[in-house]
Amino acid sequence: MKEGVVQAILGQSVFDGGLEFPLMVVHRDALEHNVATMAAFVRDHGMELAPHAKTHMSAEIAARQLAAGAWGLTVATPRQARVVRGFGVDRLMVANQVVDPAGLAWAAGELARDPAFEFLSFVDSEAGVDVLARFAGDRPFRVLVELGREGGRAGCRTLDELVRVAAYAQQAPGVELAGVAGYEGGLRTAQEVRKYLGALQEAVEYVRVRNHILSVGGSEWFDVIGRELVATQATILLRSGAYVTHDDGFYREHTPFNRMEGELRPALEVWAHVLSTPEPGLAIVGMGKRDAPYDDGLPIARRDGVTVLRMQDQHAYVRAHGLVPGELLAFGISHPCTAFDKWRMLPLVDPDYRVVGTISTNF
Amino acid sequence: MKEGVVQAILGQSVFDGGLEFPLMVVHRDALEHNVATMAAFVRDHGMELAPHAKTHMSAEIAARQLAAGAWGLTVATPRQARVVRGFGVDRLMVANQVVDPAGLAWAAGELARDPAFEFLSFVDSEAGVDVLARFAGDRPFRVLVELGREGGRAGCRTLDELVRVAAYAQQAPGVELAGVAGYEGGLRTAQEVRKYLGALQEAVEYVRVRNHILSVGGSEWFDVIGRELVATQATILLRSGAYVTHDDGFYREHTPFNRMEGELRPALEVWAHVLSTPEPGLAIVGMGKRDAPYDDGLPIARRDGVTVLRMQDQHAYVRAHGLVPGELLAFGISHPCTAFDKWRMLPLVDPDYRVVGTISTNF
Repeated sequence: MKEGVVQAILGQSVFDGGLEFPLMVVHRDALEHNVATMAAFVRDHGMELAPHAKTHMSAEIAARQLAAGAWGLTVATPRQARVVRGFGVDRLMVANQVVDPAGLAWAAGELARDPAFEFLSFVDSEAGVDVLARFAGDRPFRVLVELGREGGRAGCRTLDELVRVAAYAQQAPGVELAGVAGYEGGLRTAQEVRKYLGALQEAVEYVRVRNHILSVGGSEWFDVIGRELVATQATILLRSGAYVTHDDGFYREHTPFNRMEGELRPALEVWAHVLSTPEPGLAIVGMGKRDAPYDDGLPIARRDGVTVLRMQDQHAYVRAHGLVPGELLAFGISHPCTAFDKWRMLPLVDPDYRVVGTISTNF
Repeated sequence: MKEGVVQAILGQSVFDGGLEFPLMVVHRDALEHNVATMAAFVRDHGMELAPHAKTHMSAEIAARQLAAGAWGLTVATPRQARVVRGFGVDRLMVANQVVDPAGLAWAAGELARDPAFEFLSFVDSEAGVDVLARFAGDRPFRVLVELGREGGRAGCRTLDELVRVAAYAQQAPGVELAGVAGYEGGLRTAQEVRKYLGALQEAVEYVRVRNHILSVGGSEWFDVIGRELVATQATILLRSGAYVTHDDGFYREHTPFNRMEGELRPALEVWAHVLSTPEPGLAIVGMGKRDAPYDDGLPIARRDGVTVLRMQDQHAYVRAHGLVPGELLAFGISHPCTAFDKWRMLPLVDPDYRVVGTISTNF
């Protein structure tokens, strides 16, 4: 959808403005509530927030996160870094070992051009440090050494390995060691998380740098992080991303706010037409893999007795009785990241579904 | 990625031009081979091709398909119809019962504005016909009555039902019956397909209209369609879409060219960096759910001994030995539809990976 199409109906309801369906909308109140809730959470726990912008890749959402006091933004790739830098952010963290020549050349150029620009990335190997050293300009690439775990994604598998890579980074020309990073998102129990956070704290003690940064991520365990890392002698940079729109599926189930005061609210909703009711109990809805996420749970109908069974490119098979072709249905989603990346322009709506703004994405 | 970024390196290799990775490229030779191959196939079998543009939603690819003699284009939604109409196509088929008010208002407007514009859509119920009648202008909405099957997607479940809906459409003001449609794509054996095509032919005999159109779809069974429907007294409109880029996964396995002379060639390829090699036998590659399809088979490495195990938003877990961070790997994909919708701009390349053009998408 083009930006002008949505802007043309500012103040009108999305149901009256001639928009085509399916349509994903962003609820402004929920979005702003979530931004404020996480800003308060990190403030109360003495942490900093570097929200993962890969979730939304949206200038409008990033601006709200920064206005609420975020340290800066996290991204996953150099391409995302370049895009997000264009949003006007001064502090960027790429939560990966960066090896992309074009991306590193760009980052070195930005560091040279703008003394206020801060750029952090991860390393987990001597080879990764060498790549950075090769592309560094006058200002060094600041890095966090990543601690992983057996069976996990990237990151050093042992503290010994981490200390070795840290020492290597400390002596590498063009590279400056800034701290330690980890990712607890894939862990399934609080006990596993505590154990992993313990290893990260140990790593912080081994890796001696001034103004130590310790970055952790995810939107599932920040309550445990807040409790466990409170006494750590480092700036805690939390990279949560999905919190900003929350959802009706995976994160509804896994949010730390299920275990503490407060709440996040689902900000994304997909509206789609019943296209066909070909058999009793079956409706074909015009919402497919192009419109709503399906990788971590299917969309959740906001009407009792209506269940999404499976999805194809442009259709959902829905179990329901009494629906008729032409009826509009609302669905919550599961997994915000794979919701945003299906849309280029989304209406931002008030509780009456009046369009109060646009949310553009930049994937 | 912005158009200018790719156009700026026309004539250069994608590996030399300062592009960031991951990157999906379109191989021009394979694309043009596939367009020509299918154009020849339908010509040889006395059929017409209305390629499903939902696959790519790209003006550049649509132009090639039309130049090769396609009847027009198929789309899945009214939004896609509007976009594709902007590509300059005069004949459009929406392969669904259309109930979207904005979409129907647009279509009625286009029919009124341009006498040369042809617009076809499906119906499978009286309710669907009623919706069309409500939005019709002076020129009627031309419809194909859809025959489905028990357990399938949309479409009338029996011939009796189809005949009833056809009769209803024939008398509805603002609606004109043009023929019959079906979708054999979900069927798993040639025997099932033959049986279903037999029912479609029966439907054609029951539904008497002049210049009868019979539309069938998919990229898995057009060989059987070509043989079975050869004597049918109707214009056969084939809606295949995925053929145009083919793939290295699902369609490689299921293409009719496995059963007859000729071949399609995979035109899509994703290149991505090894970001980390944290354990022996494991590499983390910078290609995730945002970059390559994962819904119908994972990407297929173009190097022996390299296997994609699973994907996250921005990463692939790859089983391989001897890789180093910074190395570039090439992957074929499975399922073109969910490959194109992840990219806004793709370099079109020659066999030496020199950029010879751009392929833009419009999702």
